[in-house]
Amino acid sequence: MNRYSWARYQKLSLALPSLPLTVDLSRTSLPDEALESDPLLLDAFPRAFEEMEALEKGAIANPDENRQVGHYWLRNPPLAPSAGLRTAIEETRDKVMAFAEAVHSGKIAPEKEGRFENFLLIGIGGSALGPQLVADALTSAEDRMRAFFFDNTDPDGMERELGRIERSGGLGRTLSVVISKSGGTKETRNGMLEAAAAYREKGLSFARHAVAVTQDGSQLDRIAREEGWLERFPMWDWVGGRTSVLSAVGLLPAALQGIDITGLLEGAAACDALTRARAAEKNPAALLALAWFRETGGRGARDMVVLPYKDRLLLFSRYLQQLIMESLGKERDLRGEAVNQGISVYGNKGSTDQHAFVQQLRDGVPNFFVTFIEVLEDCAGGRLSIEVEPGVRSGDYLQGFFLGTRQALSEKGRPSITLTIRDVTPRSIGILIALYERAVGFYASLVGINAYHQPGVEAGKKAAGEILALQLTVAKDLDKHRGQFRNAEEIVASAGAPGQEEMVFKILEHLSATSARGLSKLPADHVFASRYGYPE
Amino acid sequence: MNRYSWARYQKLSLALPSLPLTVDLSRTSLPDEALESDPLLLDAFPRAFEEMEALEKGAIANPDENRQVGHYWLRNPPLAPSAGLRTAIEETRDKVMAFAEAVHSGKIAPEKEGRFENFLLIGIGGSALGPQLVADALTSAEDRMRAFFFDNTDPDGMERELGRIERSGGLGRTLSVVISKSGGTKETRNGMLEAAAAYREKGLSFARHAVAVTQDGSQLDRIAREEGWLERFPMWDWVGGRTSVLSAVGLLPAALQGIDITGLLEGAAACDALTRARAAEKNPAALLALAWFRETGGRGARDMVVLPYKDRLLLFSRYLQQLIMESLGKERDLRGEAVNQGISVYGNKGSTDQHAFVQQLRDGVPNFFVTFIEVLEDCAGGRLSIEVEPGVRSGDYLQGFFLGTRQALSEKGRPSITLTIRDVTPRSIGILIALYERAVGFYASLVGINAYHQPGVEAGKKAAGEILALQLTVAKDLDKHRGQFRNAEEIVASAGAPGQEEMVFKILEHLSATSARGLSKLPADHVFASRYGYPE
Repeated sequence: MNRYSWARYQKLSLALPSLPLTVDLSRTSLPDEALESDPLLLDAFPRAFEEMEALEKGAIANPDENRQVGHYWLRNPPLAPSAGLRTAIEETRDKVMAFAEAVHSGKIAPEKEGRFENFLLIGIGGSALGPQLVADALTSAEDRMRAFFFDNTDPDGMERELGRIERSGGLGRTLSVVISKSGGTKETRNGMLEAAAAYREKGLSFARHAVAVTQDGSQLDRIAREEGWLERFPMWDWVGGRTSVLSAVGLLPAALQGIDITGLLEGAAACDALTRARAAEKNPAALLALAWFRETGGRGARDMVVLPYKDRLLLFSRYLQQLIMESLGKERDLRGEAVNQGISVYGNKGSTDQHAFVQQLRDGVPNFFVTFIEVLEDCAGGRLSIEVEPGVRSGDYLQGFFLGTRQALSEKGRPSITLTIRDVTPRSIGILIALYERAVGFYASLVGINAYHQPGVEAGKKAAGEILALQLTVAKDLDKHRGQFRNAEEIVASAGAPGQEEMVFKILEHLSATSARGLSKLPADHVFASRYGYPE
Repeated sequence: MNRYSWARYQKLSLALPSLPLTVDLSRTSLPDEALESDPLLLDAFPRAFEEMEALEKGAIANPDENRQVGHYWLRNPPLAPSAGLRTAIEETRDKVMAFAEAVHSGKIAPEKEGRFENFLLIGIGGSALGPQLVADALTSAEDRMRAFFFDNTDPDGMERELGRIERSGGLGRTLSVVISKSGGTKETRNGMLEAAAAYREKGLSFARHAVAVTQDGSQLDRIAREEGWLERFPMWDWVGGRTSVLSAVGLLPAALQGIDITGLLEGAAACDALTRARAAEKNPAALLALAWFRETGGRGARDMVVLPYKDRLLLFSRYLQQLIMESLGKERDLRGEAVNQGISVYGNKGSTDQHAFVQQLRDGVPNFFVTFIEVLEDCAGGRLSIEVEPGVRSGDYLQGFFLGTRQALSEKGRPSITLTIRDVTPRSIGILIALYERAVGFYASLVGINAYHQPGVEAGKKAAGEILALQLTVAKDLDKHRGQFRNAEEIVASAGAPGQEEMVFKILEHLSATSARGLSKLPADHVFASRYGYPE
């Protein structure tokens, strides 16, 4: 069968000029007649549509956490199941816009100097990836503020970002935006404390340069209130981190940067409207979910490689990595059966990746399907770049490499989906975000899992808590025996941490490199030596 | 079996204090006695060591392209199989250092103003990823120049990077470094032309702001010579793009940035020395190759997830993606049998990714093994960050999350390798680069493939060339019938491109969005309409 004919393209692609968006499944493994006859369309999709409708109406779609799932309401507040929620969404959006305007006009100004020229977003995971995607995809020469990020608990990384801020107007002109839904995320708490210390060192008050985005009454909310931060914006338990980019989490930094957040919201709302269609063949999100299911056997048997041919969409692959893997990567289905679900996602951008891993995609392990994202417009605003050959521009090459690579993969039987958008604008980013949120929701219904919790993340946090307690135990024991040469096993015995030799050894390795707690006085190879006996 | 006991750690990890580097395989699927009794150690590794020795001595280790493979000589020139090669390597390294010094001192200065404060690296794939890794991992407040990159043929991406340069001293203070081994890479050629046009627009001569890194006599070399660029640095056919970071490709930008390139080279040389050990249990690269083989069944059955717990190593995962996937992702083995080899690689950094896809790693599809990279030192130079709780710093949390996540994965039977390095310095980056180059070489021997060619990339380029020709054919036909409404099928017939309806349609979609060639005068949905018939 010719898997990439014109006839097949016309059968298996869906063009939606009103968005605009085209979803092309003609180079997947789906049979020609899939959109009319795939059994999933009759059996599983009707239920997926019903579950999605119930979710949008306020059902407890996240049963494990007993929560509603309301990210679709964020761009269409009249959908919200109560007047209170509707008002909260609308007021927050208005507050975000008013705050950004006041910052841009200088009405809200830094403690000592001039205007706010930068913002430093302090958040991790869902509180950073969406904002980073939006900031990078939609930056322009007209940006009102420059964006910086603390998205980890790496002190060296934070020091580096503070250095960049120093070269860009300094902390005195920087607004810190601390984002934690729960208000208790340790990485974010640490980032906040490191930032506060840096402001203090410059003789500046952190509170006069800070706003919080968090749930009402959280630890972060309490600190922001007590210290009198510039503003507090709400988060709600019915918005998950990975779908929070169209709440204050993503809207506030976008508005500060000067990005048209109405465009983001309208794009998402327009895509939502079309992805409610019960006829799967007219529903681009349903088509994606169908293709994912068929390419992965409904059990993650193939990886999803995401290749946007546009520098601005580099972070979209990483954004999808979180959205898809955290939503679908689940041990148990809704009935409690062990299923170990998920789809692995990776990718950067084309044609750059053609010079990196496309060699393997074409010739190597056939363990993946590609999603190409094509952007029709060459430059923002439709500007034309120079001709690099008579009648040929760099953007023609970009399309040539996209079509060429796709063709080379098709010829080797490597399946691919193609999404085509016109340009990279707030509207089209809103469309892509909404498209994938809905596709993930449908897919979760098809395989019967809860897409809206993340129990596996908790296990790592709990284990980390135990390590941190052990670090303190070890440090205390080291202080007590300052200057003594002892190996990990002796320290375990002395500190009373039976069975924890390996962890204690790892902790000692780290301590020996931080030059804290008097360990700098020990020989440099003390810790390594502790494993092989004392140094000679 | 307890897969993560202290006894097992001592058996299955190798500490090399002289680098320093520790490779810990105790949380992989290897049995306790693997390092003594794995059959590969007896059967396959002796041959891998022999092949590596022959390669280092100058054998044609890349038979398909009839080339030697000499990246190990770059950091140990006396190894080179001829005096001429040795001299070429040494002279190039000296020339790089002298050039960087002359730029820093102002002896080599821009055409009109002050000093060179920025460099713009124009390259793609192996000519960009290594330099980007080094620039990002080793940046510091002491940088002598700021780094910018054109690494694609996206005109919008280039415009954006030019905007960043404008805000950082401008093109007048920017040295362009054009890197293409073959000298004919189209993305790089386009980047060069776009950059040259941008200089011209500022009234500046590109030649007076440009250097080339390319093979002697290449198209790029010829242009640089004829136009009188500031300098030309050689590349050689015995260095592959993905292993070129310690040639002028990586050394020149690093030296310009002010990075200690001697440290990079010495780190790699020190790691090379240890990874020549014929006793696999003492050879960290052999241990990696062994673990990869056992985790993937020697056929890529599991993905490699790379998680460095350090912001500075974010790009290392992407660097490895290229090095490993382009080297190992091969259709045929050396005997010509179809094997579809490879290992898929992805990852960003911890603990950030813990809030993204670690949910799936722990609970979802068990289709991967992790490589954790632990950095013992918290901050560059051993500085201490603030305490975020009594006796606890952000870096303690970073270690806590690393150990906690690893533990949570181990408890679910998810295998992991851990690499531990002391710090992120030129030396340790050199060590990591050399470690993985050698591991890839060994693994290629184990599975019997050529790690040093990339035939699959050519197919995409060839297909792209055909698309570019078709673009011109279509454009010519459109010009001839300017103002007419025709659909893709009619244009195919008129332009004489039988069977190319889908490609022509895709080309039309792109053209309609570029507002070039008079198409802007057509209705905005002309191209979409061309599929569904004429607009009403």
